[in-house]
Amino acid sequence: MQISFDRFNPREYARRETLFHVANGYLGVRGSFEEGVPEGVRSIRGAYINGFYDESPIHYEEQLHGFATTQQSMVNLPDVQGITLMLNGEDFTCFTGSMDSFSQQLDTRTGLYLREVTWTSPRGHKTRLTFRRLASFVMPQLFAVEVSAEALNWSGQVSITSTQSGDVRQDSDPQDPRKAAIGRKTLKVKAVSLLEGTSLMRLDTIASGLHLSSAVGHRLPSGFSQTVARHKDVVTWRFEGDVKAGQPFSLTKYCVFADSRRFDKPDVEAKRLLEQASGQPFSHWADLQEKALTQLMASAQAQITGDESLSRSLSYAMYSLLSSAGRDGVGNIASKGLSGEGYEGHYFWDTEIYMFPFFLLTNPEIARALLISRARMLPGAIDHAREMGHAAGALYAWRTITGPECSSYYPSGSAQYHINADIAHAFLSYWQVTGDLSFMADTGFQVLAETARLWLDAGHYQNGQFRIDSVTGPDEYTCIVNNNYYTNRAAQHHLRGLCHLAEALKKAGLYDQAARASALDEGELALFQRAADSMFLPYDEALGICAQDDSFLSKQRLDLGGIPRERFPLLMHYHPLFLYRHQVLKQADTVLAHFLFEDGEDEEVIRRSYHYYEAITTHDSSLSPCVYSMMAARIGEMDKALDYYRSVATLDLYDTHKNTADGIHAANMGGTWMGLTYGFAGLRIKADGLHFRPHLPDGWQKYSFRFRFRDNLVEAVVDEAGIRFTLLDGPGMTVMVDARERLITAPALKA
Amino acid sequence: MQISFDRFNPREYARRETLFHVANGYLGVRGSFEEGVPEGVRSIRGAYINGFYDESPIHYEEQLHGFATTQQSMVNLPDVQGITLMLNGEDFTCFTGSMDSFSQQLDTRTGLYLREVTWTSPRGHKTRLTFRRLASFVMPQLFAVEVSAEALNWSGQVSITSTQSGDVRQDSDPQDPRKAAIGRKTLKVKAVSLLEGTSLMRLDTIASGLHLSSAVGHRLPSGFSQTVARHKDVVTWRFEGDVKAGQPFSLTKYCVFADSRRFDKPDVEAKRLLEQASGQPFSHWADLQEKALTQLMASAQAQITGDESLSRSLSYAMYSLLSSAGRDGVGNIASKGLSGEGYEGHYFWDTEIYMFPFFLLTNPEIARALLISRARMLPGAIDHAREMGHAAGALYAWRTITGPECSSYYPSGSAQYHINADIAHAFLSYWQVTGDLSFMADTGFQVLAETARLWLDAGHYQNGQFRIDSVTGPDEYTCIVNNNYYTNRAAQHHLRGLCHLAEALKKAGLYDQAARASALDEGELALFQRAADSMFLPYDEALGICAQDDSFLSKQRLDLGGIPRERFPLLMHYHPLFLYRHQVLKQADTVLAHFLFEDGEDEEVIRRSYHYYEAITTHDSSLSPCVYSMMAARIGEMDKALDYYRSVATLDLYDTHKNTADGIHAANMGGTWMGLTYGFAGLRIKADGLHFRPHLPDGWQKYSFRFRFRDNLVEAVVDEAGIRFTLLDGPGMTVMVDARERLITAPALKA
Repeated sequence: MQISFDRFNPREYARRETLFHVANGYLGVRGSFEEGVPEGVRSIRGAYINGFYDESPIHYEEQLHGFATTQQSMVNLPDVQGITLMLNGEDFTCFTGSMDSFSQQLDTRTGLYLREVTWTSPRGHKTRLTFRRLASFVMPQLFAVEVSAEALNWSGQVSITSTQSGDVRQDSDPQDPRKAAIGRKTLKVKAVSLLEGTSLMRLDTIASGLHLSSAVGHRLPSGFSQTVARHKDVVTWRFEGDVKAGQPFSLTKYCVFADSRRFDKPDVEAKRLLEQASGQPFSHWADLQEKALTQLMASAQAQITGDESLSRSLSYAMYSLLSSAGRDGVGNIASKGLSGEGYEGHYFWDTEIYMFPFFLLTNPEIARALLISRARMLPGAIDHAREMGHAAGALYAWRTITGPECSSYYPSGSAQYHINADIAHAFLSYWQVTGDLSFMADTGFQVLAETARLWLDAGHYQNGQFRIDSVTGPDEYTCIVNNNYYTNRAAQHHLRGLCHLAEALKKAGLYDQAARASALDEGELALFQRAADSMFLPYDEALGICAQDDSFLSKQRLDLGGIPRERFPLLMHYHPLFLYRHQVLKQADTVLAHFLFEDGEDEEVIRRSYHYYEAITTHDSSLSPCVYSMMAARIGEMDKALDYYRSVATLDLYDTHKNTADGIHAANMGGTWMGLTYGFAGLRIKADGLHFRPHLPDGWQKYSFRFRFRDNLVEAVVDEAGIRFTLLDGPGMTVMVDARERLITAPALKA
Repeated sequence: MQISFDRFNPREYARRETLFHVANGYLGVRGSFEEGVPEGVRSIRGAYINGFYDESPIHYEEQLHGFATTQQSMVNLPDVQGITLMLNGEDFTCFTGSMDSFSQQLDTRTGLYLREVTWTSPRGHKTRLTFRRLASFVMPQLFAVEVSAEALNWSGQVSITSTQSGDVRQDSDPQDPRKAAIGRKTLKVKAVSLLEGTSLMRLDTIASGLHLSSAVGHRLPSGFSQTVARHKDVVTWRFEGDVKAGQPFSLTKYCVFADSRRFDKPDVEAKRLLEQASGQPFSHWADLQEKALTQLMASAQAQITGDESLSRSLSYAMYSLLSSAGRDGVGNIASKGLSGEGYEGHYFWDTEIYMFPFFLLTNPEIARALLISRARMLPGAIDHAREMGHAAGALYAWRTITGPECSSYYPSGSAQYHINADIAHAFLSYWQVTGDLSFMADTGFQVLAETARLWLDAGHYQNGQFRIDSVTGPDEYTCIVNNNYYTNRAAQHHLRGLCHLAEALKKAGLYDQAARASALDEGELALFQRAADSMFLPYDEALGICAQDDSFLSKQRLDLGGIPRERFPLLMHYHPLFLYRHQVLKQADTVLAHFLFEDGEDEEVIRRSYHYYEAITTHDSSLSPCVYSMMAARIGEMDKALDYYRSVATLDLYDTHKNTADGIHAANMGGTWMGLTYGFAGLRIKADGLHFRPHLPDGWQKYSFRFRFRDNLVEAVVDEAGIRFTLLDGPGMTVMVDARERLITAPALKA
């Protein structure tokens, strides 16, 4: 599938820098023009390593105890995108002369981004130029660019300048009050060595004590000369040669980054990897790229027949997820992936609730790496719990890179205790899908136990009910409440899941060691079970719906119809107290609980709750529509489900939130995949396996997707006849379709 | 009464700078040593004009809509305290040589601060030095210092240096994370003119666009020469002469400040006032000071017989209140008075609830000025309401100097909507005590109406009850709650009071104009009445107490006994969410409501509520113990009342909160006066006049206080025989004593 534009529009430049970023879960480079753009064209030129961050103190005018004190920000790496071409004495840019053709294209099958321009210079010289880029899925430290050009109606001298600049700053925008007016510097160049045509730049972060090596080398067009010079923090190569009309020439630039969070000796590693990379032509890495992507997609293919545009969005969503997710147990998934600095490159619950399912069901080894990255943050979560006044347990940070809380507005930050249960939900799902009990014993149990302890410390009993006060649920328009339904339900699932896991570990003889590692005894397990069984879940008798929290339904209902369109999103136009005072939702809350934890809840209560909350939900968060889409499908309202799904699938490609320039909405990419699988196909992971309630939206001929479960790889196809499964690999399995058992065996049986 | 210390203790230096500040409601100067102190001795040298401020932007890492954007800070004025003496070649300081005697003394009767030192220089020269200071109650722009000295065992040259420094900064403390590490500059010197021995310095604030003139002149010791020079922002005078042993000499320094918030031409005014001031010797101003203070105290005298220390505290409290309160309708009362920069010189509800009653009942013209200052902020309160999302009405800022909200942590800032009702309460009390209906028509009605409108916009009806959601009550350990009892009760009083006032204005023929000025019609009045009558007041049947809010009593009770002493105040050691999650109070909340609005509440409910909340109140706010003292007296628990009263009366004099260095606790000064009158004597202002329920604490022989009511000035004395009133002036009046009517006439009748 190709995402492409065949016209150049300077006003869309920054947005396309996001859409055409290349990334591989470790390294991401925004899709800027190599030669740059003139002042006045909004550009956020940047490159990032997942989890490579700098720190700065957080200032508060009134600082209270336990407020987050240190901001972590994903660092904008040295700029290695720079390549300018002087063609027969004229500088190539898309802003001078004229373009006979122009296209930007990302191929989700090959993993390459391509820019093709046929350019007529001011003096009338025509040149065809092609820029190809990749962030390698095979060598994650490698970003490579190939520039090919052909003089069409001239012969003459070509001078190519390529740069590696350590003089970079974080994104800034003097026009946007939410951003810094002047970008902060987060890197300091410590040394540059120029050796045999390559450059090795060593940098330190300003405050976080991390190190980075950036190595750059080239493959020259044949017959070109090369010079290299360093001036301050910028290394500049110049390649010069004569070309003839109709004789193509090309340059490949190899850029390797290695950081001290992954490598003991980033310098040595960067040098070694650059050598390895530049030993091969661009085509070699492009071939490997396609092979790697094909392999990843072998278990993830999904498509929609009957809506080409949605099918393309789906491809882009899956490709983006694969580009964003860390594989090394260090990097997780930033809320903008590796496509921009929005939200400082922080990890949120977005990973576990919106993106994790895609990996778990298609490439579970990536899901495992994401869980390991969370387990690595456990010490930070334990510290955070202490800062928040808890004598026991761990509280994961609402937003963080390495573990410490980086949210400076705790009512919709640290107060979102549900993140503990969200992470627990991911661990438990992983166990259900993979059956990997040994990982759960080694790693999962301790995370589940420490986070479970927090519920006991945060909650208390009253009249036999276990209550959790003063927390914030998913809906950020209602903060610091008592007994948020979602939170209590998620905590219940967490506590019960831990008790089930303990049973399973006991049966497998793995319990004692796991319990010892968590200093957990039977008495504590019994407390978990009791709290889960006594969990208070607010319910409104009169309305027959689950209440978002103790007080939500007694507040004044906000008449959304009475608010002018331009005052949305509400958080940009209303003080939080105004929002908190009203029945109004930023995003799915109780409805999300019904999505994740449907078992035991009455169908009519789910339906009534959906309608009640939908009417007062603004979807001002991009985390909302996909949930409403999936739950509309769940209650059989397919037109509504499809309407929501369209808005989900098109968010970034059509920039409907007007902020794609700052980076993709990675969770929404997960929502695009889940909207199909969990939404239309009604997929759910339960203790007894996978469940489906398939639906085919009007206008679609069919849709298909693949999933892995235990040792099986299965393709599911949904059409008017229903759902049918093809076992592509593995011993076969049983699933539940509309609550009836279905056997999937080889050779595939028609359903 | 004298507050005095006869030993010098460098560690108490900053605290005494506060205690010995001189102020008059317009101008305040901290009691620093004229000659300064060496580095290492903590000193906060400063001088302030009530309401003279600079601005700075408030930075938030995550800024939401409606957050306060601009900080206002009371400006540290040019330093005019500087006077150093070189005595026969040796610099006088309290840190060299030795002191044969030392005393610091504030006389609350004369309004003078005195420092007397008998100093032996390192070379053995003995000198007696006396420094006297005043901030004039007669010419509020004047601060005057007189230095007198006598060589005891030497004759020789004396050189006196006196400075006026425009190079000043705001308070800072690199050791205290709550303060800036480097003091911010808020003033810029624009011009200095030196003419005929006087200096006129013109300054502008950096950001707020205000102007200030500082004028300084001297009366020289006879026979001394004078030179003056300016270097950058500092003017330095040198006075030199020869003195003989046993022949005293003295210098008077006159310092006048005039600001552009009060004067169109501060320069002209400062010059004129300096001329007038320096035309008279120090003794002239000292005489006037005593006369003015005597007059103010004529209607405010109060004393305790049987506890000298408490009686002294009471005197200091009244004196401090008179020093702190603005009289000009511009300045209000900062929470630290004019004694320091703590809380940025902001005005809070402290004024109306804790300090206003003293002025209202003793010097109502000052009370009136305070109300005018609030009325002047009404436009800012209307703007603030809009920022907070309210379509109608005014919401007073929680902390401000001129009106805009300056609280950067809204959960215990702007969310304290009760400030509207607190201000309304002061206006209504003023009407009840003075009967000044014309002021209420001209000014009070509009304030009451605009602030009342906010309740209608903030609240809503459910099941016939008027409910107010998502506000914070007085207790800052429980924020953003629904139906805070205090808030709802105070709003009810506010709405009812406004309706009563409307009736009274109608009868007096003043209504139509007042209503027109507020664009208020009968329909709106009926809405106010209905909301008041439908006000929901949470009550717990099982406990038989008023509930602090909808959810407070369902939270976990914090076991205060289990928390180590060093973790108090809790806000310094626990995250707000921890505090919000528990039943724990920073300060009186429901108990304060019962203090202010007792009518209609059951006696047993008041008593039970007191005991319930007292057990979980930390008194981490200095606004709390005085309320618990008064309410202990109210329910007849006199020992407890006295214990609390002692802690109130001694707070600053004994620095029990360890922060007197930052300024006095002005509200607590009000609490000291109220503890006697409202507490032990059971004074209440009600619609039908003054009520008393007098008690005499154990160990006291008697206590007395004076009050004004309408045209009467009365002295009340409480002893074992009960309360008796002496009419000192006026036509006589009726009061209620223990719910029985008592006539006060002249000649005074024994009760």
